Amino acid sequence: MVKVGVAGYGVIGQRLADGVVLQKDMELVGIADLAPTLSIRALKERGMPYDLYLVEGANKAAFDAVGIPVKGSFADLISKVDIMLDSSPGGVGAKNKELYAKAGIKAIFQGGEKNSVADVFFHGYANYEKGLGASYLKLTSCNTTGLIRSVDCLDRHYGVDRVAITIIRRVADPGDYHRGLTNALQMEKAPSHQALDLMTIMPQVEATGILVHTPVTHGHIITVVAQGKGGKKISRDMALSAFKSHDRIRVVRMEDGFLGNASFFRYARDLGNPRGDMYEIGLWEDSIVESGDQIMYAINIPQESVTIPETMDGIRAALRMQPDSAAATGETNKYLGLGRWK
Amino acid sequence: MVKVGVAGYGVIGQRLADGVVLQKDMELVGIADLAPTLSIRALKERGMPYDLYLVEGANKAAFDAVGIPVKGSFADLISKVDIMLDSSPGGVGAKNKELYAKAGIKAIFQGGEKNSVADVFFHGYANYEKGLGASYLKLTSCNTTGLIRSVDCLDRHYGVDRVAITIIRRVADPGDYHRGLTNALQMEKAPSHQALDLMTIMPQVEATGILVHTPVTHGHIITVVAQGKGGKKISRDMALSAFKSHDRIRVVRMEDGFLGNASFFRYARDLGNPRGDMYEIGLWEDSIVESGDQIMYAINIPQESVTIPETMDGIRAALRMQPDSAAATGETNKYLGLGRWK
Amino acid sequence: MVKVGVAGYGVIGQRLADGVVLQKDMELVGIADLAPTLSIRALKERGMPYDLYLVEGANKAAFDAVGIPVKGSFADLISKVDIMLDSSPGGVGAKNKELYAKAGIKAIFQGGEKNSVADVFFHGYANYEKGLGASYLKLTSCNTTGLIRSVDCLDRHYGVDRVAITIIRRVADPGDYHRGLTNALQMEKAPSHQALDLMTIMPQVEATGILVHTPVTHGHIITVVAQGKGGKKISRDMALSAFKSHDRIRVVRMEDGFLGNASFFRYARDLGNPRGDMYEIGLWEDSIVESGDQIMYAINIPQESVTIPETMDGIRAALRMQPDSAAATGETNKYLGLGRWK
Amino acid sequence: MVKVGVAGYGVIGQRLADGVVLQKDMELVGIADLAPTLSIRALKERGMPYDLYLVEGANKAAFDAVGIPVKGSFADLISKVDIMLDSSPGGVGAKNKELYAKAGIKAIFQGGEKNSVADVFFHGYANYEKGLGASYLKLTSCNTTGLIRSVDCLDRHYGVDRVAITIIRRVADPGDYHRGLTNALQMEKAPSHQALDLMTIMPQVEATGILVHTPVTHGHIITVVAQGKGGKKISRDMALSAFKSHDRIRVVRMEDGFLGNASFFRYARDLGNPRGDMYEIGLWEDSIVESGDQIMYAINIPQESVTIPETMDGIRAALRMQPDSAAATGETNKYLGLGRWK
Repeated sequence: MVKVGVAGYGVIGQRLADGVVLQKDMELVGIADLAPTLSIRALKERGMPYDLYLVEGANKAAFDAVGIPVKGSFADLISKVDIMLDSSPGGVGAKNKELYAKAGIKAIFQGGEKNSVADVFFHGYANYEKGLGASYLKLTSCNTTGLIRSVDCLDRHYGVDRVAITIIRRVADPGDYHRGLTNALQMEKAPSHQALDLMTIMPQVEATGILVHTPVTHGHIITVVAQGKGGKKISRDMALSAFKSHDRIRVVRMEDGFLGNASFFRYARDLGNPRGDMYEIGLWEDSIVESGDQIMYAINIPQESVTIPETMDGIRAALRMQPDSAAATGETNKYLGLGRWK
Repeated sequence: MVKVGVAGYGVIGQRLADGVVLQKDMELVGIADLAPTLSIRALKERGMPYDLYLVEGANKAAFDAVGIPVKGSFADLISKVDIMLDSSPGGVGAKNKELYAKAGIKAIFQGGEKNSVADVFFHGYANYEKGLGASYLKLTSCNTTGLIRSVDCLDRHYGVDRVAITIIRRVADPGDYHRGLTNALQMEKAPSHQALDLMTIMPQVEATGILVHTPVTHGHIITVVAQGKGGKKISRDMALSAFKSHDRIRVVRMEDGFLGNASFFRYARDLGNPRGDMYEIGLWEDSIVESGDQIMYAINIPQESVTIPETMDGIRAALRMQPDSAAATGETNKYLGLGRWK
Repeated sequence: MVKVGVAGYGVIGQRLADGVVLQKDMELVGIADLAPTLSIRALKERGMPYDLYLVEGANKAAFDAVGIPVKGSFADLISKVDIMLDSSPGGVGAKNKELYAKAGIKAIFQGGEKNSVADVFFHGYANYEKGLGASYLKLTSCNTTGLIRSVDCLDRHYGVDRVAITIIRRVADPGDYHRGLTNALQMEKAPSHQALDLMTIMPQVEATGILVHTPVTHGHIITVVAQGKGGKKISRDMALSAFKSHDRIRVVRMEDGFLGNASFFRYARDLGNPRGDMYEIGLWEDSIVESGDQIMYAINIPQESVTIPETMDGIRAALRMQPDSAAATGETNKYLGLGRWK
Repeated sequence: MVKVGVAGYGVIGQRLADGVVLQKDMELVGIADLAPTLSIRALKERGMPYDLYLVEGANKAAFDAVGIPVKGSFADLISKVDIMLDSSPGGVGAKNKELYAKAGIKAIFQGGEKNSVADVFFHGYANYEKGLGASYLKLTSCNTTGLIRSVDCLDRHYGVDRVAITIIRRVADPGDYHRGLTNALQMEKAPSHQALDLMTIMPQVEATGILVHTPVTHGHIITVVAQGKGGKKISRDMALSAFKSHDRIRVVRMEDGFLGNASFFRYARDLGNPRGDMYEIGLWEDSIVESGDQIMYAINIPQESVTIPETMDGIRAALRMQPDSAAATGETNKYLGLGRWK
């Protein structure tokens, strides 16, 4: 049983902790945070299923005041784990890295950190081998993680030379009050970083893209225009067949009621998934269209939870728990119940 | 064990079914619906924890096509239960009532039906006694249910003569595509039906109010201006003390992170509540202000789940499982875990 | 002076009327409508700058009750004009066509009608010649009109073989209460009708696309991936130079403050444009990126007013006021002040 | 002709400048700003109807680069005017005040500044006399300005002892990208500052209130519960009659199509008002309800433009152009066309 800690118990950190607990070959030692946030208060109301450690700068008296038990310091947590999943606010992870290095433990950083924080910019399917034994991995961001799942899927089956993407980005998470957009679409300078990141992970593909922020909270939608390798046409049926075979892609139809990003959110709530989360990206069967030798399709990215599976893959890579991608992602999928719905 | 069925497995019906399952003195016999909606598909993916019966007009072939097992007809379900919780679309409940009458079973209708469908317009705290042994109850709507909790609470403690309410109404549920509002606030003719409904349930109180629809999905917010009985002042401390003693009112503070309706939604998700639901209304301690002999405060209404506890109370009343309100609501609260957080 | 009438004084009809008034070679005879809507009440408050005629079914007493003067019947209006601009609700135009035919006048229908209502599906730049002398034209919809402006621009300059578009569609107009979407993105089955419509108007181009509805009211945004004719690369500079030469395309930069669709709306208000309208599509210079031999860019479509110039072109075509596209669009642009900002 | 300058040509500043130009007894000397914002670029595209002066810190080269002519420095502008309308970003006005004091000119600050910046916290109707001859006035904020119009109206007619308000606040202006809220309602600690501000301006009234932010951009809505003086009842008819007599209150009905805040925005656009602005608050006739001796009603506040009339009143007061409120507000109303619609 490898021992895992989580730094930063926010939107991502909570889901990382839950994800680790589901892996039968991993043990969650505890989580670390700074203040008695709503998430920490909820943890207390749940009876502290996870031990809480305080990072430097935390005011223990604030936790005592509301009766939240504290197990120890961040250093205590670090001393007990093989690897730390760092989902601290952007920039803090880089600072924490010094502590990890001193303690000789490995770490996986989330998308908010700069690429330079890690030895390897990582995706469980697309470049698992690069992560093998690495000390520091950085996960791709939520959009890039989901996007690569679909492009890697086509690339493995048929080869892909080029993609042009349009990201319709949700601007905040449910519950966010520190950011938002009201009745406006907002552009970002092209090309989007997700296209550039895809090329870093999959250098065999040329990618570009445009990102537009929209005032919604449930799931990004990305349209992808992909060109087959060497101009070879990827037909609608070929694409559909490949997508349906993937355990982290949920192929759905509008006519069955999956009308948009909010349908996935509702469906995951109705499934009884904790927090109404979904690990799979959605892919609309009735969005797939051909254009000459290009194939176009749309996917849904559940931004809060989509990176959890690939982070579990990352643990398996960094700690050499599995030698290859297929075995590692298979283990993760099994423990998270992915592919079970088919 | 009283036997309970649920007609209409939509937003409310799912939560009614889940709520019944938690009552140790009730048995959920099954649920009935018309089409393989997303909610029914999710039920299937969960392994059919609840038996499915088909209402008249349902196309069984459509269920067979996606492999959803069907237990029987609506008549079959009706024949097996003591009481039916009817959360069919508005108007259908009145038609269903004829079937219930013929079978000699009782029923509780949700807020979408007309008052005339039932013998008693019901609220678990405010008029439990009226529901004792009644054949047909109609629950107050989500806003009215939550509003009455707070007004009844003040009335029982100190007496209330009059309230003037402003309802800031969420316009759709998460996942809704059949209704919505974009960048607009929408008025309704005053007085709002919630004020009129409150007077039906609590005839000792004079009520009026204005309702404004807002383009959000997580929780209505209501402000209440209440006048104490006979002009007696209800002070801020008196109100706070009464609210804190109520097991279905969750008193919170903005400074702790409960910034608005979305905070409650996030908190309930982080608590691990199924679907991220919350049965309690929220009440902001830092919203309570005095104005002469009047007290003013704001509450949050989790529209999808707030009526579940009072519906459970209704079952206890209609089937005379408990003779009085305090005992009945106490049982419901115990099984739903309400008041546990204190 | 050709005589023009407008049927249906709603969002589009008002702007058509205003547009006709600005054409020095046209005369607005009057507008026709059914009920004293807010728009008609505003016309009255402005002192009835346009004469009002009532369509069949209108209740004249309702107009009298609020003191709105009525000039005559729809038949009266029809008898006085050479051409009618029909912006009635979808489906009504087809019925009106019978009246136009009987009276021997021409008509231009807006995008809400079926293509079959007209002899020619029309765009001022892309197929002006087809509209010459035609009795019945149908304008492309707002998205298609703006999209074609940009694709036709590239096609005329460099040739275009294929486009793949992503339409991020605003779901309602400012002031709409009859439709809306709240915190959700909504898919439409692919390919989008706009891609199909583009191919009808520009048969030399292969087009496909995906449309996603978003809960905003100010301006659609479309991303376009275009492939040059015969695989010839259209570079960023080539595209930019072509777009900048177009009088109905406003090339802007994010760094200058044009951050999204709402910036255009605000800018047009600050310009003092009536209703804060803009006739030009926006095109972000910093959205243009290359991908192999393809060029990708993003445009903004001011949905309420974008079809007005092409409708004026249509009048010129149908009534043979100008023999060719360049002369006709030039006249329209001069009277509407397009290109003036350069 | 009194000479007026405007500092800060943003959302409010533009409207102040436009408002001054409409006053036949005032002359707009010019406006001052810091950077070539979209608003300044629009001014240039309009042909510089207003002379532009640059405040300290402005980079003149940036204006030159886009061909925006500059008339002089902020000091130049100050030296030419009798009074400055300061709508600089919050806090800057206080700094500017030193310049005004040195130059011996008067100034009116907008709601964003602290009350201490001014000698008098001012409202054209409620305390005009206090502003007579004052050197520095601060206008009430948009919500408070509109709220006081309605409460002062009732108070002058019948006397008011107490109000309890609920402010449903729009969170951003159309075009804003620097603030926003997505699918969330946000509370503010009670009592709201608008209630406290009302008491400062109208000390004879006791006020409290709760404010909730909503994700919309067109117009705040406020509900008011008002108690007549000495317990005397203000009936629905009495209230309606008073409101209808007020030139800055536009009484409308939902049944005529005024469904919410967005209806006012659309109506003002259809009226051809510059920027689609409206100076009047809206008041829904069908929102007025009685509750015992209290009266309740709802108003609409067009946040971008509502303070313009009261600022014009302020100029008249500070420069002693009119001795009393009725004459001064009458002049303002005449020049702005208020009351004309009746």
